[in-house]
Amino acid sequence: MLRSVRIPRPSTFHPWVPTTILRSTASTSAISSLSVLQQTRAMSHKLCMIPGPVEFDAAVTNAMATPATSHVAPDFIEKFGSALELLRKVFLAPNGQPFIVAGSGTLTWDMTAANLVEPGEDVLVVNTGVFGDWFGECLGVYGANVTHVRAPFGDRPTLEQIAEALSQKKYKLVTVTHVDTSTGVFADIKSIAKLVKEKSPETLIALDGVCSVGAEEIRQEEWGIDVVLTASQKALGTPPGLAIMVVSQRALEVAANRKAGPTTYFGSFKKWLPIMKSYEARKPSYFATPSVQLILALEVSLQQLVAQGMDTRFAKHREASKKVKDALEQWGLKLVPVNREVAANTLSAVYYPETVKGPELLQKIGSHGVVVAGGLHPQHSTKYFRVGHMNVSAVNLENHHLDKTLAAIEQSLKELGHL
Amino acid sequence: MLRSVRIPRPSTFHPWVPTTILRSTASTSAISSLSVLQQTRAMSHKLCMIPGPVEFDAAVTNAMATPATSHVAPDFIEKFGSALELLRKVFLAPNGQPFIVAGSGTLTWDMTAANLVEPGEDVLVVNTGVFGDWFGECLGVYGANVTHVRAPFGDRPTLEQIAEALSQKKYKLVTVTHVDTSTGVFADIKSIAKLVKEKSPETLIALDGVCSVGAEEIRQEEWGIDVVLTASQKALGTPPGLAIMVVSQRALEVAANRKAGPTTYFGSFKKWLPIMKSYEARKPSYFATPSVQLILALEVSLQQLVAQGMDTRFAKHREASKKVKDALEQWGLKLVPVNREVAANTLSAVYYPETVKGPELLQKIGSHGVVVAGGLHPQHSTKYFRVGHMNVSAVNLENHHLDKTLAAIEQSLKELGHL
Repeated sequence: MLRSVRIPRPSTFHPWVPTTILRSTASTSAISSLSVLQQTRAMSHKLCMIPGPVEFDAAVTNAMATPATSHVAPDFIEKFGSALELLRKVFLAPNGQPFIVAGSGTLTWDMTAANLVEPGEDVLVVNTGVFGDWFGECLGVYGANVTHVRAPFGDRPTLEQIAEALSQKKYKLVTVTHVDTSTGVFADIKSIAKLVKEKSPETLIALDGVCSVGAEEIRQEEWGIDVVLTASQKALGTPPGLAIMVVSQRALEVAANRKAGPTTYFGSFKKWLPIMKSYEARKPSYFATPSVQLILALEVSLQQLVAQGMDTRFAKHREASKKVKDALEQWGLKLVPVNREVAANTLSAVYYPETVKGPELLQKIGSHGVVVAGGLHPQHSTKYFRVGHMNVSAVNLENHHLDKTLAAIEQSLKELGHL
Repeated sequence: MLRSVRIPRPSTFHPWVPTTILRSTASTSAISSLSVLQQTRAMSHKLCMIPGPVEFDAAVTNAMATPATSHVAPDFIEKFGSALELLRKVFLAPNGQPFIVAGSGTLTWDMTAANLVEPGEDVLVVNTGVFGDWFGECLGVYGANVTHVRAPFGDRPTLEQIAEALSQKKYKLVTVTHVDTSTGVFADIKSIAKLVKEKSPETLIALDGVCSVGAEEIRQEEWGIDVVLTASQKALGTPPGLAIMVVSQRALEVAANRKAGPTTYFGSFKKWLPIMKSYEARKPSYFATPSVQLILALEVSLQQLVAQGMDTRFAKHREASKKVKDALEQWGLKLVPVNREVAANTLSAVYYPETVKGPELLQKIGSHGVVVAGGLHPQHSTKYFRVGHMNVSAVNLENHHLDKTLAAIEQSLKELGHL
């Protein structure tokens, strides 16, 4: 029953009380009172180590609690414009067009499908899990003829399979799930993009980066990816509620020259493009009310990413992933991805030990103050669980999120007789 | 230059610092330090008196700053389920089906159009401003044949006009903008619904309640309205980012028995219905990640509405509106709505005095700490401005939002020579 990883005291790992409030309280007794509160809050809050929503930095939480602000107030316009500029840096797409729209990440599938694919056109989905199935279903709703190239659960299609599919017909669009959150499988988008450019240069490439943007290496412009889409609550470290994408100029032209009528209103590039351009030019504009507080929070988080540098962020997520996966394997657990090469750095999907009941393990880990996620893939959901390691939990190691998570898992495995 | 309405000290009208933090600080000095901060914050924050986003109650702001929580964590499921139940009470639709989806209010147009209207079917839009034009455009994107019944700027179509339109063809759906935020015009939905039921009982009725739900009298079930749609940032008093609607069982059946294929993925009733039912049954479920913090904030706000009672809320908004409109007219300003009967209770749209330049007046009012909105209707936007009076600003009079707003307008009119 000895713990090999020290669990830090709660007050040190979740200072969620807004930092500006802490900084602004002049007297020592005020700080001390807040510290007590902070400690209480931290103890009642379970560490959220699922593959999104992820833990928030205190400055991000603080930005969520701003007073009501007009969506066309100068202060907000400045922050919205800044967030758009920062997205280009985070996506490494200096000439791309960012979009920030109120919605879930799923909305960016609709936006991709409805703006870039006309009814009857062919789309190839590089499928590494259930999110590939669902993206394909969404594309079909907007009239695409969808072909999936698939792999067994836990694996990814080979480049040869993809090349073979590309030789069968001319696709308007290829979509790739960078990290399938249901399997923890990682697609080699760099090689896939290179292959598509060789075999079918006119074909557009869309990367579902919901569980990867900000953590996995993506060089949107250099690699020639036309659409990278994501959501606020994963490696971007912001609460859920924003659909985010950066679109290449080539793809914008395809959308602008569309022959079929529009098939979405709220998700229309033509509606949102002038709005995004206006805000970036620091001018007021209106199509639908933006999520003011979420955008303020996103801007804070993007500033943090850019300040540290994307290469550093990518490296730190690789290190965090290795640390978690090494520990899990050391305890005799088997990863869902068939090998480390196809495993994501943003989460670890791992089979339950044979002697342990899944719900009991999740509950036990929860009793030690950490929330991890069950399986998501419909055919396999009861066989595995998932641990997210993104943003502050992977990058700010002084918060000991990884240590506390690993300690909670190890302790739970011991209590359930696996270790 | 005398002010007839006293402007209260800033610290009394915007206590935005989370109340739980204030309550939890035990020592007097801690409270005193926070009060100073609170005062500083309040002074730098301009009162947001536009027709949405509206000012937030401190408890709502506090809920926005909660730490990261899994979207399937028991605590969150309880709050999401509670929010759904409360929506039925706020909409006075005990048998209606609530939907809460990440997005802007505009998304609810797409959801209404794509789920309830099949391509080629006829829809009648009762148009009282630009939001009617846009809702009509959205319906067209999803294949509806749209007929508008219109009125001159500032007025609303008569019941006779609507009856005449209903006699021309069989409409699948009639849509009514309850309060057109661009004109401040109020539609008599009770009488319109009665008329539609007499003339064409099979026709579905959808009410765009974006700038009315929670403030204007709506008895969804009693009046037989099939869809009431809104957004979080208006009279519901929550930050922007949630698309909210309550749908009748009759309309759900229409959506379920649809013959044409789906025309939206993210906005699909079929996708969201089991999710909403699960959360209300306090069970985890997943289609797309909900906006956890916004839903927690919404739940707090809905609790406040229901605790006070909807009839009281409706009455308080009528009183607030009368107070603002009486003052504006007393100063010689002319309302955009042609008479009080067609004027909304949630905002006042008012022409600039002839001798005053619009941008100067807005800037002057801003210099007195209050933000109001310019015109929105494309053909008339430079001629008028808009003052929102919803939720805490209309209901919690002890915060003196209305007094401060009227004082700022009066003072500005004086400084610009109108008074």
